[in-house]
Amino acid sequence: MPNERSSSTSPARTAVAVLGLGPMGRALAGALLAAGHPVTVWNRTPGRDAEPLALGARSAASPAEAVTGSTEGATGPAEAGAPLVLLCVRDQSAARAVLEAAGAALRGRTVVNATSIAPGDARANAADAEARGYRLLNAAVLTPTPTIGHPEGTVLLSGDAEAFAAHEATLRALGTVRHVGADPGRAAAFDAALLDLFWTTVHGFLHALALARAEGISGAELAPYAQGLPRLLPPLIDRLAQRADDRRHPGDHSSLASAEAGLAHVAHTARARGLDTSVLDAALAVTRRAVGAGHGSDGVSALVDLLAG
Amino acid sequence: MPNERSSSTSPARTAVAVLGLGPMGRALAGALLAAGHPVTVWNRTPGRDAEPLALGARSAASPAEAVTGSTEGATGPAEAGAPLVLLCVRDQSAARAVLEAAGAALRGRTVVNATSIAPGDARANAADAEARGYRLLNAAVLTPTPTIGHPEGTVLLSGDAEAFAAHEATLRALGTVRHVGADPGRAAAFDAALLDLFWTTVHGFLHALALARAEGISGAELAPYAQGLPRLLPPLIDRLAQRADDRRHPGDHSSLASAEAGLAHVAHTARARGLDTSVLDAALAVTRRAVGAGHGSDGVSALVDLLAG
Ligand SMILES: NC(=O)c1ccc[n+]([C@@H]2O[C@H](COP(=O)([O-])OP(=O)(O)OC[C@H]3O[C@@H](n4cnc5c(N)ncnc54)[C@H](OP(=O)(O)O)[C@@H]3O)[C@@H](O)[C@H]2O)c1
Ligand SMILES: NC(=O)c1ccc[n+]([C@@H]2O[C@H](COP(=O)([O-])OP(=O)(O)OC[C@H]3O[C@@H](n4cnc5c(N)ncnc54)[C@H](OP(=O)(O)O)[C@@H]3O)[C@@H](O)[C@H]2O)c1
Repeated sequence: MPNERSSSTSPARTAVAVLGLGPMGRALAGALLAAGHPVTVWNRTPGRDAEPLALGARSAASPAEAVTGSTEGATGPAEAGAPLVLLCVRDQSAARAVLEAAGAALRGRTVVNATSIAPGDARANAADAEARGYRLLNAAVLTPTPTIGHPEGTVLLSGDAEAFAAHEATLRALGTVRHVGADPGRAAAFDAALLDLFWTTVHGFLHALALARAEGISGAELAPYAQGLPRLLPPLIDRLAQRADDRRHPGDHSSLASAEAGLAHVAHTARARGLDTSVLDAALAVTRRAVGAGHGSDGVSALVDLLAG
Repeated sequence: MPNERSSSTSPARTAVAVLGLGPMGRALAGALLAAGHPVTVWNRTPGRDAEPLALGARSAASPAEAVTGSTEGATGPAEAGAPLVLLCVRDQSAARAVLEAAGAALRGRTVVNATSIAPGDARANAADAEARGYRLLNAAVLTPTPTIGHPEGTVLLSGDAEAFAAHEATLRALGTVRHVGADPGRAAAFDAALLDLFWTTVHGFLHALALARAEGISGAELAPYAQGLPRLLPPLIDRLAQRADDRRHPGDHSSLASAEAGLAHVAHTARARGLDTSVLDAALAVTRRAVGAGHGSDGVSALVDLLAG
């Protein structure tokens, strides 16, 4: 048994328990194993550990056993087993169930919760961890499973900065890891904002494909022009972000009035083809309210101020 | 007066009338002048022609005069004046007003209508042009004014293929020009689908900035991670477009159930901060309907089939 106190200086030897073996849990376990860490895995439904076992993991019958390395579970010594616990299950209620099941076995360890949860839940989990004597970092995995273990794999962590410093070297096995603040909810807040952008954009493209199809244009015909968007976005993202921070919204590039006209035009065209226009209608209504409130000649970034209740 | 019949083989000499001098009309006129074309401009409100005049344009007091090159307007000979007319005003009702005002002066000429209009309006305008004895191409300018006259400037045209062939060399002065079909509404349909994608994405990013701000994250902090989206989009656009065309929607990359979970998670987080969530709610409702109809394990591209009425 290695001396766990020196684990942060010899990351190749830090033992890690991975709880949850969905696609992401398996990817996290695989990356840690590839980096030479001893990994013990557990999953609620047995028999989903074939992949990590083949890569050299050990399997445990309960969260407590995975964490302590002992079938005695929580009654084993706190220095034994894995100083670092990675939890990656479906959602907050699943995460709570596993944390409860692990119980006192977590005392003195650091749990990185890589389950996608809301910022408020991350804060509640951290408060609970403190009360129960373990350290909690909340992690937001921003990239899909194939990126994990590679530099493109991006994981934001927030919460206890000391716990992060102690395990940063180990966590680097997952890809690019960043500590974004001591507020435990902060990684989840980044995640939520980025998911907002991602899913709204995906929805927009799917709707564009539906509208194109209704007008006799195939996806193959539309795609080369749609590729203009990723070329256009980088400076637009930086400019809109800057203006949001400055709370100054010049209408020089694109005004709310022109956004309103554009959205109205598209919604009209889509409705004429019998398409569902509920997302466009909602965006149009928000924009129209902003124009009605006298922001027509402001830049579209003015909406950032106006979307807040 | 040059022989207009040979204009297509000596594009540098094709006279062009530009009707409408908003930002886009001025950009179009400027690019034609830069390419050496004689340009006559007209704008409803006088005094907005300083920029094209400085670049060598002539100014006319009416659409008919701009087109015929004669103060007699429509009573001048059809061979005189500009064989090519570029119309770029606010919207369909403005375009109709200018076309009506130009009246019989348009006979025998080609009008390129670069006003953003609906596909159905483009078709109606083309039918009307045919009845009145002039040729009409509908144009969709996909890129902002600074791109006009450069290769990034992208203009799609649809309608009368012969008219396009006759004037393609001249139109190339505007940037990259593509004839996308004989259906006069087709360029406008491309435009609508691309605007759908663009405005939905912009709205998504503005909402993400609002959500980040409510969680204490600045635009400057969010932007570097938001730049992940334009890196992610190119293969995603091609894959979703292909699956829409194939009408096969494997859930291997991203299922509708995971989209539903993601949207619900973000909407919940945004609502907890008092943000307007109407766009997210609409996207969630559409996705939830699809999941409810048994498409939960299908890929998100299944929505393209389901958004059609
Ligand atoms: N996959 C990705 O690309 C990706 C990317 C970023 C973030 N994430 C996040 O990572 C987390 C895990 O995602 P995933 O893709 O691995 O698959 P998932 O389907 O979201 O989660 C599956 C895992 O959750 C477990 N689970 C569900 N309910 C449970 C409960 N009540 N108690 C204990 N375990 C429970 C499952 O155990 P059973 O096997 O027993 O059902 C399985 O281990 C999610 O929060 C997801 O949002 C995933
Ligand atoms: N700007 C861009 O980046 C861009 C990009 C792609 C497409 N477009 C499209 O290009 C078209 C023109 O846009 P824009 O940016 O130049 O500015 P705009 O504000 O959309 O249009 C201004 C022009 O429309 C004229 N106009 C408005 N109502 C009229 C009427 N009833 N009769 C005659 N003329 C009328 C204005 O004349 P007055 O000066 O007399 O008001 C002015 O010449 C629009 O359809 C726009 O969607 C623009």
